[in-house]
Amino acid sequence: MHSDLVISGARTPEGDLVDIAIRGATISAVSAAGTAGPAEQRLDAAGWLVAPSFVEGHIHLDKTLLGLPFIPHIPGDTVAARIAAEKQLRRTVPMSIEERGARLIEQIAAFGTGSLRSHVDIDTEIGLAGLHQLLKLKARFAHLVDIQIVAFPQSGIMADPGTADLLDAALAEGADLVGGLDPAGIDRDVTGHLDTVFSLAVKHGAGIDIHLHDGGTLGAFELRQIAERTLANGFQGKVAVSHAFALGDIDDFEFGRTSELLARADVAIMTNGPGPVPMPPVMRLAAAGVTVFAGSDNIRDAWAPYGNGDLLQRAMLIGYRQGFLADEDVAHAFAMVTAIPAGVLGLDGYGIAPGKQADLVLLPMASVPEAVATVPTRRTVIKRGRIVGGAGNF
Amino acid sequence: MHSDLVISGARTPEGDLVDIAIRGATISAVSAAGTAGPAEQRLDAAGWLVAPSFVEGHIHLDKTLLGLPFIPHIPGDTVAARIAAEKQLRRTVPMSIEERGARLIEQIAAFGTGSLRSHVDIDTEIGLAGLHQLLKLKARFAHLVDIQIVAFPQSGIMADPGTADLLDAALAEGADLVGGLDPAGIDRDVTGHLDTVFSLAVKHGAGIDIHLHDGGTLGAFELRQIAERTLANGFQGKVAVSHAFALGDIDDFEFGRTSELLARADVAIMTNGPGPVPMPPVMRLAAAGVTVFAGSDNIRDAWAPYGNGDLLQRAMLIGYRQGFLADEDVAHAFAMVTAIPAGVLGLDGYGIAPGKQADLVLLPMASVPEAVATVPTRRTVIKRGRIVGGAGNF
Repeated sequence: MHSDLVISGARTPEGDLVDIAIRGATISAVSAAGTAGPAEQRLDAAGWLVAPSFVEGHIHLDKTLLGLPFIPHIPGDTVAARIAAEKQLRRTVPMSIEERGARLIEQIAAFGTGSLRSHVDIDTEIGLAGLHQLLKLKARFAHLVDIQIVAFPQSGIMADPGTADLLDAALAEGADLVGGLDPAGIDRDVTGHLDTVFSLAVKHGAGIDIHLHDGGTLGAFELRQIAERTLANGFQGKVAVSHAFALGDIDDFEFGRTSELLARADVAIMTNGPGPVPMPPVMRLAAAGVTVFAGSDNIRDAWAPYGNGDLLQRAMLIGYRQGFLADEDVAHAFAMVTAIPAGVLGLDGYGIAPGKQADLVLLPMASVPEAVATVPTRRTVIKRGRIVGGAGNF
Repeated sequence: MHSDLVISGARTPEGDLVDIAIRGATISAVSAAGTAGPAEQRLDAAGWLVAPSFVEGHIHLDKTLLGLPFIPHIPGDTVAARIAAEKQLRRTVPMSIEERGARLIEQIAAFGTGSLRSHVDIDTEIGLAGLHQLLKLKARFAHLVDIQIVAFPQSGIMADPGTADLLDAALAEGADLVGGLDPAGIDRDVTGHLDTVFSLAVKHGAGIDIHLHDGGTLGAFELRQIAERTLANGFQGKVAVSHAFALGDIDDFEFGRTSELLARADVAIMTNGPGPVPMPPVMRLAAAGVTVFAGSDNIRDAWAPYGNGDLLQRAMLIGYRQGFLADEDVAHAFAMVTAIPAGVLGLDGYGIAPGKQADLVLLPMASVPEAVATVPTRRTVIKRGRIVGGAGNF
């Protein structure tokens, strides 16, 4: 039986030169280079590295300002001040969330991202309007990316009364996870905030992904509170905490007891390799049994002018920031944008093997460490068995 | 009189749309867009941003492994261990310094770098062989880049007896500056090391650029020792310290007295926006009157697999690392790879004005902050009045 597509002569992350046969949206066979049977279409990989598509662990499709002329950053010293500045801006932006989000999806798909978890602001001003536009994007771009949506209370839950009901409605209308935000720093009610988030998650059988910027021992306390609730609700493997700067900013005793609890509760940590603030120590957390995955976070939005959504560049940035130099460490940074977030997002059929989804990215490199260190701009991207993009160049 | 080249319709960093007329290697006129006279060749900038060429403040042309297959990093926990690992590697690398350095020069010139300061290892094993190859590169690539060479005692001066004489010979044979390396951490003799470096500089009328990784109060002490010798020798404006991690790792009292002395002695600080170690606080130093400029440092070498020499990406990295968000701060990161290092390197004729050297880079962006935040790969590069490169893509 003919394949629909054969990718011939690609190098796997393990170093093997293989042919990858694809039928429909699925990998049907992986065999030694030169041995694949007939196919409707052949793509000569010429020895390029093949990897499963990048998995974006944290993005805000509703926040990006891509497609608009460059907008100078509006300063704000605190998270609260920046939330206010962002709200002010979004009232005046002359382009819909759907249009801006579409630009971002097209850009990151060209870089090789095949799946993503996007947060979407839910508050009493915007209501579910952002969610509705993300749901449209999810359907419209199903050929390019698989989208998971977190209902994110960017203005707090207790601090913006009415938000809990909106989160409830968002989960009923198609959000996949419930979010949270600085239970102490923004809502000033750790118990109330987390009780609300967990009860919504339990009600809807939804996962949880909480933004936590609170630092030091306060942030560590909140992490332990989250882990304890995760265990109490049997939610192991369904909870993530994004940023968790506190893990890079506490002493050994605090780190030890916090990481032990996070590992036991199987709470995953998302990091974007932040610039000016403390970063969770990736390898130390991994050694403690804590899953750490990566995401782009802000991409040209009210929070920061930086970012392009290229997860290969993000892996480089994380490796650079963490001082990953040896091949196995650099390869770990690559895993943080591929296999590790695929596990956190619960993606079925992720990987390069028969029966797996044919979501692949080809890079003109000889190995994973070389790809991360070099960040080549040339790519070939395959989604659901179709060649959907070339260079992520712009 | 005809111009040789007119760049028409380019946007300056100040936002003006201009024509730039060039005769020979020199800018002959800058006028409102559409007003330039006849020229042998015209380049339609189509509104792209024009900037003076990037100035690389710190690179190691002799260390890069570009051109070779990717070589896994050889670990080493201390600076001394990594120096040993690098020496081991360089004995076996099957490609000359000149060949590898040529690859790097071609790569960075395509990104828009027009001038650079390169360190070259001087020690009792390699002697002046690296310097001789860099001098060849300097002549061979004079059409692409202006090269300034620092004779760099990578294995120490007191720790590798005989090196002082080699540095002396290097300065006699064409090195422009004398380097130094961790007077405490490597040479364990702050006084002996600095006395040697400064006496060589005085003897040859050469500038100084010292690598300083030593952290905390020790590094701060060494910085003050350098500043005091700079004042005592009347070397204000001729001394730079590269890395100076200590400035990111000391209390307010130490920072205050150290930055005050650095400012008074006009000692400049070079940072590459390091990943896992403390970074000198750029704006706080600027406020104290200390010049901080940028460089790429390691590019695919025995020290790190990262780096591509794109100074626009480096400006982004520095801005990201320092939390520069507002336009004026992001623009400062751009100045750290353009006007500021041009001043430190003492480049004559740098800038966009009649009489200045026609060393320019064109970027498909509307403003400097947008360029830094976006890091577009497309470029047009002009060196000495000639179009020498297009996209820095690879």
